[in-house]
Amino acid sequence: MKTKTLLMPLDMHLHLRDGVMLETVAPLSAYSFSGAIIMPNLVPPVTTLDDVVEYKKRVMSAVPNDYFEPYMTLFYKNYSKSFLESVADEITAIKLYPDGATTNSDGGVASFDIEKMRETLETMAELEIPLCVHGESAGFVMDREAEFMSVYELLAKNFPKLKIIMEHITTKDAVEMLDKYDNLYATITVHHLLLTLDDVIGGMMMPHHFCKPIAKRPEDLDALLSIALEAHPKVMFGSDSAPHPQHKKETCGCAAGVFTAPIALQLLCEIFDQYGKLDNLQAFVSDNAQNIYGICPEFKEVTLENRPFEVPTSYGNVVPMYAGETINWAIESVE
Amino acid sequence: MKTKTLLMPLDMHLHLRDGVMLETVAPLSAYSFSGAIIMPNLVPPVTTLDDVVEYKKRVMSAVPNDYFEPYMTLFYKNYSKSFLESVADEITAIKLYPDGATTNSDGGVASFDIEKMRETLETMAELEIPLCVHGESAGFVMDREAEFMSVYELLAKNFPKLKIIMEHITTKDAVEMLDKYDNLYATITVHHLLLTLDDVIGGMMMPHHFCKPIAKRPEDLDALLSIALEAHPKVMFGSDSAPHPQHKKETCGCAAGVFTAPIALQLLCEIFDQYGKLDNLQAFVSDNAQNIYGICPEFKEVTLENRPFEVPTSYGNVVPMYAGETINWAIESVE
Repeated sequence: MKTKTLLMPLDMHLHLRDGVMLETVAPLSAYSFSGAIIMPNLVPPVTTLDDVVEYKKRVMSAVPNDYFEPYMTLFYKNYSKSFLESVADEITAIKLYPDGATTNSDGGVASFDIEKMRETLETMAELEIPLCVHGESAGFVMDREAEFMSVYELLAKNFPKLKIIMEHITTKDAVEMLDKYDNLYATITVHHLLLTLDDVIGGMMMPHHFCKPIAKRPEDLDALLSIALEAHPKVMFGSDSAPHPQHKKETCGCAAGVFTAPIALQLLCEIFDQYGKLDNLQAFVSDNAQNIYGICPEFKEVTLENRPFEVPTSYGNVVPMYAGETINWAIESVE
Repeated sequence: MKTKTLLMPLDMHLHLRDGVMLETVAPLSAYSFSGAIIMPNLVPPVTTLDDVVEYKKRVMSAVPNDYFEPYMTLFYKNYSKSFLESVADEITAIKLYPDGATTNSDGGVASFDIEKMRETLETMAELEIPLCVHGESAGFVMDREAEFMSVYELLAKNFPKLKIIMEHITTKDAVEMLDKYDNLYATITVHHLLLTLDDVIGGMMMPHHFCKPIAKRPEDLDALLSIALEAHPKVMFGSDSAPHPQHKKETCGCAAGVFTAPIALQLLCEIFDQYGKLDNLQAFVSDNAQNIYGICPEFKEVTLENRPFEVPTSYGNVVPMYAGETINWAIESVE
């Protein structure tokens, strides 16, 4: 049976939430990943040293062992230099949300006034804290990411020493932007390597495929696949796994987010294997991130097998992507 | 208080379903409309003289009085001339569905082979039976209607005496196609005069705004508004009101269809009034259809008032568009 071993898999964009949900989902990521960038969009968001330290404690107490590193983040605001210096050791990145762009993003950046952002962003560059960005305008849903490209350019040009991560990119436009500036990087989710808008609303309406940014056009999917499968050195895996309780998904006014954490590595093996690119998966799912972020995760070795695996219909009260369906790779062992 | 009186309003595209659903929704349309084109996509579809006659009886027995004319349709197949002659008096139009394009469209047209369709379409032209078309390709969801334009051209050129109705158009492409061929006409729904894709998946995911064809881009909405508000003589109102029980909408795998029949005239008044075009509504909602189809509906006079109206949260087990919200026009009287 064909197998694939991955060393220190990293999820560079993860939502663990808090409370009961945190306890439900954190062990699932901790099982198969060495570490993950933990998004700060709690209610209220993570904006102080105390918030970070306390949230990290809650994350650690929700995972069953020590072999998982939660790389903590702050919710972007215009922070002072002294504050950033005081918090730098406790965070790995700062996550910028445009105000209201997605789940729990209220209070994010309302306008990109470079001069008002200068102290924060220059200090981040100095302290080598990457800026993770949810890159969507407030425009028409299919254009939001493309319209945001000018903001990425503005940030990349004005802060050439700042590492800027274009999070969960979904378009050909973002793929093309990646190589225009040395300091631009990107994460890609596994669901955006599988879905187009057709899978969200092309047949029936599928709430468990509904996320922000929304899955785009076939040519966008092709562009994402092309850089993921070659493990472009500026691209990392970030699941954007975003759990919501079932009743908030299968309802009128369904919340945005696809829950993939427990099946992400299996699906990535399936995709990379399908295109004959399994050899590149290690770089996509760990090595590139280590290089970009300069992190050294705890040792973990995950071996997957090319055999049928039936995705559970739910994990606690959270319905995963492909619930009840059979996928073609399974986790065999974790060491 | 501002009022608007409409004479013999017609809904030129209506789904009444069958059984309990028919009994729930038929009286709502019969209350405010003089008549409606009744779509034939039952399970199994309406394809025989018997089917038409029996379905019409069931419709009539579901409406509380005689002041509503169900204009019956057949589900398009390649019918013989003799069959069409035998059924002509009982039907007003024939509805063509591409196979699998929407709810209950299985068994529709799989390929547009003009020679195989010739006998049917030429006979329809002779007998003055319009062809109503659900115009979507099997392509990417946002491109399906635009891709279908070549089929409309093929049909319009090959059968210049056949009246072809582009049903529920949603794109600038279809608006532009309308004037290219004398024998092309169109219906427009009320929800496609209000929604873009942003209202379906731009914020939360809204199952009660999910329909086929899906609502498109802002520039498409503008194009539809421009011909509806001027009551372009080749354009008619057709609600495509498509009821599903609540549990089939607010679920994983939500069915396509927006239920608007009981609030359609109110919303149309609101839209036309907002743009200062109330004077054109009579043509859009009745006169154009009478001219295009050559029909003389029963007398009905509906007076609407410009006052707040709270849309019911449901009609039986069907949730309407804008359930529980307040709209700005209400039906005052029907005579």
